[in-house]
Amino acid sequence: MDVSHRKVKKLIRLTDSEGNPLSNAEVRVQQTNHKFLFGCGAFDFIPYVMNGDEEHKQITDSWLEIFNYGTLPFYWGQYEKEEGKPNRDALMKTAQYLKGKGVTVKGHPLCWHTVCADWLMKYDNETILKKQLERIDREVKGFKGVIDMWDVINEVVIMPIFDKYDNAITRICKEKGRVGLIKEVFDRAHADNPDAVLLLNDFNTSINYEILIDGCLNAGVPISAIGIQSHQHQGYWGIEKLEEVLERFSHFGLPIHFTENTLISGDIMPAHIVDLNDWQVDEWPSTPEGEVRQVKEIEEMYRTLFEHPLVEAITTWDYRDGAWLKAPSGYIRLDNSKKPSYEMLKDLVKNEWWTDASAKTDENGCIMVDAFKGDYRISVGKSAAEVEFTDDTELNLHMKSGTDCIFLPGNSYHE
Amino acid sequence: MDVSHRKVKKLIRLTDSEGNPLSNAEVRVQQTNHKFLFGCGAFDFIPYVMNGDEEHKQITDSWLEIFNYGTLPFYWGQYEKEEGKPNRDALMKTAQYLKGKGVTVKGHPLCWHTVCADWLMKYDNETILKKQLERIDREVKGFKGVIDMWDVINEVVIMPIFDKYDNAITRICKEKGRVGLIKEVFDRAHADNPDAVLLLNDFNTSINYEILIDGCLNAGVPISAIGIQSHQHQGYWGIEKLEEVLERFSHFGLPIHFTENTLISGDIMPAHIVDLNDWQVDEWPSTPEGEVRQVKEIEEMYRTLFEHPLVEAITTWDYRDGAWLKAPSGYIRLDNSKKPSYEMLKDLVKNEWWTDASAKTDENGCIMVDAFKGDYRISVGKSAAEVEFTDDTELNLHMKSGTDCIFLPGNSYHE
Repeated sequence: MDVSHRKVKKLIRLTDSEGNPLSNAEVRVQQTNHKFLFGCGAFDFIPYVMNGDEEHKQITDSWLEIFNYGTLPFYWGQYEKEEGKPNRDALMKTAQYLKGKGVTVKGHPLCWHTVCADWLMKYDNETILKKQLERIDREVKGFKGVIDMWDVINEVVIMPIFDKYDNAITRICKEKGRVGLIKEVFDRAHADNPDAVLLLNDFNTSINYEILIDGCLNAGVPISAIGIQSHQHQGYWGIEKLEEVLERFSHFGLPIHFTENTLISGDIMPAHIVDLNDWQVDEWPSTPEGEVRQVKEIEEMYRTLFEHPLVEAITTWDYRDGAWLKAPSGYIRLDNSKKPSYEMLKDLVKNEWWTDASAKTDENGCIMVDAFKGDYRISVGKSAAEVEFTDDTELNLHMKSGTDCIFLPGNSYHE
Repeated sequence: MDVSHRKVKKLIRLTDSEGNPLSNAEVRVQQTNHKFLFGCGAFDFIPYVMNGDEEHKQITDSWLEIFNYGTLPFYWGQYEKEEGKPNRDALMKTAQYLKGKGVTVKGHPLCWHTVCADWLMKYDNETILKKQLERIDREVKGFKGVIDMWDVINEVVIMPIFDKYDNAITRICKEKGRVGLIKEVFDRAHADNPDAVLLLNDFNTSINYEILIDGCLNAGVPISAIGIQSHQHQGYWGIEKLEEVLERFSHFGLPIHFTENTLISGDIMPAHIVDLNDWQVDEWPSTPEGEVRQVKEIEEMYRTLFEHPLVEAITTWDYRDGAWLKAPSGYIRLDNSKKPSYEMLKDLVKNEWWTDASAKTDENGCIMVDAFKGDYRISVGKSAAEVEFTDDTELNLHMKSGTDCIFLPGNSYHE
């Protein structure tokens, strides 16, 4: 397994407050965050941030031990149940809380035919589109700086032919066409926040989705990354399908995000179910054998995706069992106890793919580290600096005169 | 069955050479061509035009009794077997011959991964694309005025994943993507002949093709008409599928051409065959029962398509049995005898959907005709005029002084 593209080889040169090499000094290089986005559904943070109860504190605390990236729900039908009364406060506070913990937040989704606002249906198509675009303005501008990553539009392959129930978004997608609607919503989100990471997201990994992306890119849609869902309630894809999907969606050269991953630790949903939401059960327990299977499958999948140079994010959809379809889909069980998959992933993310090194500087004040890309704290005794490792360029750190802090000149990194 | 959109209600006003109403005159209104394109493969015209043999004369003469639209082969691998030596002469003479017979000619295809020129494979992808575009320049400019309708690119849905054998076009489609290559070839063909009718053509009628067209249109590809193949060697689609396909591909509002229709009068090819070319048989006879079935299916299909307002052309692929896959796919048998399908279609095209009327002018010199759109010869005695019926605007015809011809002032039609 080659993960060298996830790492930097960094020469760090330390000088004292007079500018002389800080030789023979013991330096600690501690990673504080990953560049890679290890994500999970972060819906449980909302009740915790708003109510602060012990149950959700337990859940969110163990969540934060692994993940640096979380998805928050912006389903229009829930976010704005009554027109003009969005649930902004709870989402903003939760997003700010997560940001304060070093977690990158993604809003999901800005446009989707499911969990859509029913009150939209009283309007004509022109008005629906206008309100959809205004909704994008409100969220993308309103959360800018706190949330700068969005699933702009979700599941467009089936959007215009979705026929389970009437809804406002299917109506406008039918009228404008898939690429036409995608272009509208992406152009608007991009204008609202030109630095935002904007995703197209779909569960359809067939040639349909490839052709859709191809059309969008040729039509100038500003897609930052390709979102691929991988809910595997009906059984693990397996390495062969995973590699085949990666190969096909790599043709575009865009970053790939695995946005909604599920691997369960219980019985597999029967193959004949087409829409996962049609599988309604009273209970769906996690089993010991299921947990052994789950940990093996998650490990194989994460290793494969971490090795692929275009993959920049993996999000597991449910953190805790029962969050969707009552499935045993989490890293923790219903009683909040940790499954083997939790321990395995934590070991990957915070140990095997994590850097915490010490070294003594040479006579020129230099050390060389081989480190995973991300944020770092570099310290010599009580002096410390916060830096980011993104590439192999040399890093110069100067002890600031009269303080315990190491000062970083502007030209020493980030070049 | 409503075919009123295929017709005009035309008030024709006739005046004599002094400008007085030509009252009480017997007028004949004879259709000479259809606006609708009733097409068929016209490959058999090439040996006839080049060699003039009796066998091909028989075939092409009966062909011309029905059709006003023909497809000629421009498969690169056949048209230019040796680089730099295109078979231009035969194609140009044949196209000119057909044009002289009032037949609109389409060239098929300018870009395709099948029957492609093998000599292209020695070049790198950049050169292949350059030669593909130069080939388009040569054909589209070179045949301008004789052939102004082209299947620009064929079967793009499978083009980049076609893996039966290596070929130059799959290579460049893989590199540029489907929409990227379509855009290149269409932009070039459009620049070469801005008035040409340019088709995208595919046998894939699934959502894949819908999304591909959607992407192309949003990317500004100048598609004039959507080409749909319907080779039904494995059995008639049936009215339900036909209407469903029409409905889905009508969303774009573009004209629809059924470019390659096949309904056979013998045993049906087994359903398990995926690529029709894989069905290799020694003989595939036309049967009496098969001919009864064929005529019913063709009639239902043609009536359905003629009724649909966006359909502008239907081409039957094989005129004579055995032209492709040895299939009994023609209107005439191997011995050139006419099948029931020939007589039925001729009756539709030249009788039921054809106008040949006589009427006596009133005191104002007027007659009113209800006529199928197309070209007409209007005559009073020995005086005649050639006109085109495209809409309901009134038509004024003046007897030219001193001759037997009716003269048409510039403002009387075509407004």
